[in-house]
Amino acid sequence: MPIPAAPTAPVTPVAPRDYARARLGEPCVTQMHYARRGVITEEMRRVAEREDLDPALVRSEVARGRMVIPANVLHRGLDPMAIGIASRCKINANFGNSAVTSDIDKEVEKLRLAIKYGADTCMDLSTGGGIDAIRQAVIDASSVPIGTVPIYQAIQQVDKVTDLTVAGILENIEHQAKQGVDYMTLHAGMLLRYMPFIAKRKMGIVSRGGALMAEWMMFHHQENPLYTHWDEVCAILRKYDVVVSLGDSLRPGCLADASDEAQFGELETLGELTLKCWQHDVQVMVEGPGHVPMDQIEMNMKKEAEVCHEAPFYVLGPLTTDVAPGYDHITSAIGAAIAGWHGASMLCYVTPAEHLGLPDLEDVRQGVIAYKIAAHAADVARHRKGARDWDDAMSDARWSFDWEKQFALAMDPERAREKHDATLGHEAFKTAEFCSMCGPKFCSYKNSQDVTAAWDTYMKETAKGTPAADLKPGEIAAQAVKERAAERKVALAAAKAGAG
Amino acid sequence: MPIPAAPTAPVTPVAPRDYARARLGEPCVTQMHYARRGVITEEMRRVAEREDLDPALVRSEVARGRMVIPANVLHRGLDPMAIGIASRCKINANFGNSAVTSDIDKEVEKLRLAIKYGADTCMDLSTGGGIDAIRQAVIDASSVPIGTVPIYQAIQQVDKVTDLTVAGILENIEHQAKQGVDYMTLHAGMLLRYMPFIAKRKMGIVSRGGALMAEWMMFHHQENPLYTHWDEVCAILRKYDVVVSLGDSLRPGCLADASDEAQFGELETLGELTLKCWQHDVQVMVEGPGHVPMDQIEMNMKKEAEVCHEAPFYVLGPLTTDVAPGYDHITSAIGAAIAGWHGASMLCYVTPAEHLGLPDLEDVRQGVIAYKIAAHAADVARHRKGARDWDDAMSDARWSFDWEKQFALAMDPERAREKHDATLGHEAFKTAEFCSMCGPKFCSYKNSQDVTAAWDTYMKETAKGTPAADLKPGEIAAQAVKERAAERKVALAAAKAGAG
Repeated sequence: MPIPAAPTAPVTPVAPRDYARARLGEPCVTQMHYARRGVITEEMRRVAEREDLDPALVRSEVARGRMVIPANVLHRGLDPMAIGIASRCKINANFGNSAVTSDIDKEVEKLRLAIKYGADTCMDLSTGGGIDAIRQAVIDASSVPIGTVPIYQAIQQVDKVTDLTVAGILENIEHQAKQGVDYMTLHAGMLLRYMPFIAKRKMGIVSRGGALMAEWMMFHHQENPLYTHWDEVCAILRKYDVVVSLGDSLRPGCLADASDEAQFGELETLGELTLKCWQHDVQVMVEGPGHVPMDQIEMNMKKEAEVCHEAPFYVLGPLTTDVAPGYDHITSAIGAAIAGWHGASMLCYVTPAEHLGLPDLEDVRQGVIAYKIAAHAADVARHRKGARDWDDAMSDARWSFDWEKQFALAMDPERAREKHDATLGHEAFKTAEFCSMCGPKFCSYKNSQDVTAAWDTYMKETAKGTPAADLKPGEIAAQAVKERAAERKVALAAAKAGAG
Repeated sequence: MPIPAAPTAPVTPVAPRDYARARLGEPCVTQMHYARRGVITEEMRRVAEREDLDPALVRSEVARGRMVIPANVLHRGLDPMAIGIASRCKINANFGNSAVTSDIDKEVEKLRLAIKYGADTCMDLSTGGGIDAIRQAVIDASSVPIGTVPIYQAIQQVDKVTDLTVAGILENIEHQAKQGVDYMTLHAGMLLRYMPFIAKRKMGIVSRGGALMAEWMMFHHQENPLYTHWDEVCAILRKYDVVVSLGDSLRPGCLADASDEAQFGELETLGELTLKCWQHDVQVMVEGPGHVPMDQIEMNMKKEAEVCHEAPFYVLGPLTTDVAPGYDHITSAIGAAIAGWHGASMLCYVTPAEHLGLPDLEDVRQGVIAYKIAAHAADVARHRKGARDWDDAMSDARWSFDWEKQFALAMDPERAREKHDATLGHEAFKTAEFCSMCGPKFCSYKNSQDVTAAWDTYMKETAKGTPAADLKPGEIAAQAVKERAAERKVALAAAKAGAG
C-alpha cells in the first residue's frame, strides 16, 4: 500500500462510471453476481489497484461475500472501494440534518470535509426537510459510496409512524436506489420475539430506525415488514447493485446492555438474512455495536464472523465508556481500533457531538481523524501489507528534523502545522533541530544522534586495534559530535536549497 | 468506589500532613518500611478510603511492592493516593517550561486545571529558567503527588552536559526531596552495553533524560553514574519517602523500534534496580513505552510484571501510530486504555501538542480527559469493583432525559453543556425529550419507551386471559403511549420542581 498523499493533495481523477450505467436493465447487476461467474469487473480492478491486491483475490472475496464493493451502477462519480477483511480497514462519516436544524449547503460541505480528511464512505442520515434534494446533491458531489436509511424518508411521508405501509417502504427503497445510493441500512432483523428482551434492558432500543420499526410492529402486532418482504427488497436492490447494510436495531446503547440476549438474538437473524441476500447475489454487510466494554470487543467480532458467515462487520465505535459526552470520538476510537484489529471491516465514526446534538464542521473533522487513527492502528496491528510504511516515513522525517515532511505526512497537515507554529512560528524554525517542547539543549533526537556518532567513532578506533589505554573517549566523542554537527549543517542547507 | 462528583465540585478538605513531617529524622520513613513492619499508616488508611479497599490489603500490597503511595513527608498539602494493580488505574499530567517558553503562573495554572479535570499525579518537567521557584510553587499548590526529573536541573547548573558530576546529581536529588517532591524519574537502567543496540534503531534515544545520560556516559566512557551510585541514591530517598520512578531511557520513539533488544535489555536492568530499591525499603515503580503497535501492548505489560517483579508499571501512552501529530492524545489514549486493561497502573498523558510543541491550557484539558477516559475504560474492562456504576448512572440519566444530571456526571461538564447548548441553548430544552441530533419525531429513547410500555400492557392483557382474538394491539399500544406520555409529564414536572 503506497504511503498516502497528504489529504490536501488533489485526488487522482477517475473516469466517470459510464461503463456501470450500461449494465442497467439486467435483472442482476451486482458485483457478487459477476464475481461468482468469474468476471473481474472494472470496479474490482480499481479496488485491487487501490488496495495493492491481486484482482483475482478481490473477485474471489466478493464472490465469497467476505468483501463488498458498494457501487450503485447509477453513481457516476464514484471511485470504487471495498469493505472486507482482505482490504484496509475503512471508516464511515455520518451527517445529515434533523427537523431541528437543516441546511443543504452545510451537508455538502460536511461531505467534502469528510472526504478531504479521509472518510471512505459517507452516510446521509437526514431526517428533516428537503431530504430528497440533499441526498441527490450529496451523491452527485461524492467520489465515495453514499449510504442511507430509507425508512427515515418513508416516515417523513406519513403523518404517524404507524401509518407506514410495506408499499411505502419498498417505494422509498427503489426511489433512493434510482438516485444512486450505494448502500442502505435496513432494520430487518428485529423480530417480535425479541421484544421481551428489550424490556429487560437499561436503555431499550437506541437505534433510530429500530425504534421506529418497533413502534410499527407493536401497534399493528405484526412481524417486521422488512423481514417478511425480504425477497422483494432484494429484488429491487440487485437491479442497481445497492449493498445491504443489515441494521442492528438492538445494538446496546450503554455498557450495561452490551452482549445481551437482545443483541445476540437479533444477530442470529442477521446471519439468516445474510444467507438470503447471497441467494439473490445481493452484497451485504452487517452492522454492529455500539457501547461495549473493551474486554468484550474481540468476542463480539468473532461472534459476528461465525454467526454471519464472515460477511463484513461494520461497527459503530464501540464506545468503551458512557461517561464522557463531548469526547465520544475518543471513548469510541478506543473501541473502534480494537474492533478493527480483531476483524471489523468498517468503523462508523462518532463525533464529539454524540449524545448532545448534531455535529458541526469541526466535529466532523475531529471524528474523521479519530477514526482514521483507529483504522490505521488496526491495519498496523493486523500487519496489513505495507501499513507501517507510513509510520516509518514519519519517523524518518522526525529523526531528520524535516518539519515540512512531517506536516505533509500528517493525517491532518494543517492542524499539525498550526500547533507547531503556535509556539515557534518563524520560518527559520522549520529547519530547527528542536521544537518548543524541549528547546535546543534538551532535544533528545539531537543528543542521541551525537551519542551514536561518538559511539561509532569509538568502535571504529577499537576495531583498528588502537589499544584501549590509548583511547580517549571524551576526545573521540567531542570530535564526533563536531563532525556530526557539521554534517547536519550541510544536509539542512541542501534540503533548504532543494525545497527552495 | 463512589461515583465521582463532577470535577467542578469542591474537593473534600483533607487535614494537612503534619503527622508525616513528624517522621523526619528517622533513617527510613517510607510507606514500604512501615508496611513491612505491619504498620498501617495514615496514608494507607486514606488510600483505603478513597479506593474502597481494606486497609490491611493496602498495607500488604505496599509491603509487597505491588502498590506505591507517593507521599514525601514534606509535602504537607498532599491528599495521599496509590498507584498499583489493586487500585484504580491512575493518570499523570506533565507540564513545565522549556528554554523557549517560560512562565511560573502559567505552570501553576496548568497544575490546577489538570487536577480539576482529574489528574491523579502531575510531573513538573521544567527545563527552562526559574526551575526552583516553579517547582516549589507547584508543590505548595498541589493536593496530588508531584514528580520531577532531577537530572534536568543538574544539567541547568553546568555549562556542558559532560561537566555533570555524581556529586552534582546527588545534591539535586536531595535538594528536590527537601522541597517535597513525591516521586522522581531516574534514568539509572541504561548501561554502556546497550549502546550498540541504539545504533540499530530508527530513532535512537527519545527520552530527554536518557539522551543526556548517554551523552555523559559516551564522553567519559564510564558506566551510568546513577546505576553505579544506586545505594547512595536510595539512602537519600528513604529519608523523605520519595518514590523512584525508574526511567526508561530506551523506550521506543516509533512503532519500528518497539519491543526491541534495547528496550527489553534496559527492562532487565530496571528489574534488577527494583529489587535493590526494595532492599532499602524504597518504593519504586517502572516507566514504560512509548510507541507500540496494539498487538504488542499486552505482551509488554506481562513482560514488565515478570521482569520487574510486579512493581507498578507507569506507561507513556503508548502511541499506536506515528502519523497523527496534533492528535496524539487520541493515538495514545487507544494504547493507554489497552495498557491499563492489561495491567499498567498509571498512564502518563500525551497532549495534542506532542511532537509539535509545549501544551497550552486547552491541550492539557484535552490530554487529561483523553486519559481519564482510557483509565476508566481500563477499570471497566478489568471489572474493578464499582467501576461501571458511573456508566450506569449516566445511562439512567440519559434514558430519563435528565440533561442536568448528564452534564453533572460528565467527565467534563462544561464542555458537555457547551456542545448541547450550541444547537439547543434555550432553558426549556434542558427538560426536552430529545436533542438536536434526532429531533422529537426520531428520538429512539422516546419511541423505544413507548414501545416497551405498549408491550407491557399487551402482556398484562394476555396474562389476564383475554382471548388473543379480542386483543387489539393497535389500541393497546396507542393507550399505553398516551399513558406513558402523561407519566413522563408528571415525572418531568416533579424533577423540575425538585431542581428549583
